Amino acid sequence: MSELKKTVGIIGLGLIGGSMAIDLKKRGFAGRVLGVEADKVAAQAAMTIGLADEMVSLEDCVDRSDIIVLAVPVGAAVKMLPEILDRIHSGAEALSSASPRDPIRANAPEGASAPDKKIVIDVCSTKEHICAAVKYHPARKQFVCTHPMAGTEYSGPWAAQPGLFDGRACIFADQEESAPWAVQDILELYSCLNMRPIFMSSSSHDVHTAYVSHISHVTSFALALTVLDKEKDEKHIFDLASGGFSSTVRLAKSNADMWIPILTQNHNNVLQVMDTYIEKMQQFRDAVASYDEDALRKLIEDANKIKRIIR
Amino acid sequence: MSELKKTVGIIGLGLIGGSMAIDLKKRGFAGRVLGVEADKVAAQAAMTIGLADEMVSLEDCVDRSDIIVLAVPVGAAVKMLPEILDRIHSGAEALSSASPRDPIRANAPEGASAPDKKIVIDVCSTKEHICAAVKYHPARKQFVCTHPMAGTEYSGPWAAQPGLFDGRACIFADQEESAPWAVQDILELYSCLNMRPIFMSSSSHDVHTAYVSHISHVTSFALALTVLDKEKDEKHIFDLASGGFSSTVRLAKSNADMWIPILTQNHNNVLQVMDTYIEKMQQFRDAVASYDEDALRKLIEDANKIKRIIR
Repeated sequence: MSELKKTVGIIGLGLIGGSMAIDLKKRGFAGRVLGVEADKVAAQAAMTIGLADEMVSLEDCVDRSDIIVLAVPVGAAVKMLPEILDRIHSGAEALSSASPRDPIRANAPEGASAPDKKIVIDVCSTKEHICAAVKYHPARKQFVCTHPMAGTEYSGPWAAQPGLFDGRACIFADQEESAPWAVQDILELYSCLNMRPIFMSSSSHDVHTAYVSHISHVTSFALALTVLDKEKDEKHIFDLASGGFSSTVRLAKSNADMWIPILTQNHNNVLQVMDTYIEKMQQFRDAVASYDEDALRKLIEDANKIKRIIR
Repeated sequence: MSELKKTVGIIGLGLIGGSMAIDLKKRGFAGRVLGVEADKVAAQAAMTIGLADEMVSLEDCVDRSDIIVLAVPVGAAVKMLPEILDRIHSGAEALSSASPRDPIRANAPEGASAPDKKIVIDVCSTKEHICAAVKYHPARKQFVCTHPMAGTEYSGPWAAQPGLFDGRACIFADQEESAPWAVQDILELYSCLNMRPIFMSSSSHDVHTAYVSHISHVTSFALALTVLDKEKDEKHIFDLASGGFSSTVRLAKSNADMWIPILTQNHNNVLQVMDTYIEKMQQFRDAVASYDEDALRKLIEDANKIKRIIR
């Protein structure tokens, strides 16, 4: 990787994109951060907070950045990624057919990396669909598919914070489909964010996250709906809510725009985990209904084995 | 309330009893703490940690304490409470029929309160059963039914900690069944623990806690079971577990001895909330299965209304 600081373009300056912008700039990985934000209110907020050095158009961002971070909900990301790679690829093709004195070189934006040296990454929570969308793209090797496993239940530029990624895992999915030099550069990017890389296939990623992330969100949403329903009859139902309730329901604050595409794109895995989960709930229900203390003891003591996993 | 410090007897020196012992003594409400602990290992630990001034028998505890705190799982508490009130009542009867020079007064343990001035409280998580168990007991007025809404997912004397109750709510259930002077003394006890009192009927308490506490435990147990099941095929399923997962599964570490009686005693309310919850999960499942983004948006945005309730 060049000793020169990179120009990093971030498309979507929300919780993830904005938090990356803060630390990549502050910790010296990015010399310059270019921001792209379709939502005008969010764009204004991102500038006010100082997340980017400059807000630019999507095209400018692609043309002028060394590394392009696609940090939009996965539904939009799956549509945008092929278009970004198209633009990079046609730039690289034009460049390779041009002589050194050709106007295309002379007109290149100042300080921009050569199209064939640009890298695009995504940071989405599901990986199979986005990898499938560019599997045969001629610029596929310049795309590195990643999922930094960090976040909060908040969203938008207001939710961006320093240190969000410190000490957490970052998945690299199907990394053998990317150019080794590109993977190396992105490993350095995540190393600057203090993340430890884990390599796996995109399909394996989607199974894992269905079980240790997506289902937790659905159980929280369902819990919120259950108690909010009861509140219609019992106005003070929340008066007694304590730490345990808050902890299990916290994720129900999560954003629909982010979670609808995750749940639909990871359809098969999410359905499988939901079906197992509903089955377990039903076993609990039946044990309670029949006052079966032995069955309840077995279920609870089996569940207690989670102590081995979490602090 | 007398200016003299109380002798407080605590039956069950686990998370709740032990934490009460620490703060009642340290903050000067209790002059002396007598502990009762049936489990020998826990009794030894409680003495080593210094939770009680002295470990005594159940009978000694009742005879020598001004306030007796019943801090055992609700299944055991429902059995023990009538026996404790029996002993207090027969002591009071003997006293009222004895003359001042009678041996029964001379033999009373030094410093012990008169039987008719003793107060018993429980700290259990369900209230209807325990109130029903002593509804017609002749010493009912000396029982104050309370539920300090605080805790962690840990248990035993090792889990006891200072400040556990600070700032939390304490339910007083069916307080009109207790003598006003007894309620007053127990208000002072919980004031020393920095708890704010909430008064409600025992049946209302059990509806509320089913919705904002008991169901959260069941959803966590079911989540733990779901992912532990998957671990049998996918050894590394927990590698990607992040803060959201830990938060929703944390309560699955909770103790079977405590939770079996809660779930069976609060049977009707728990079944009702579980049925609503399973219905909500099923709605999510069907929306995912049919890729129905509008239905998913409605479910998630309705769930988001929980933002109004929790930080």
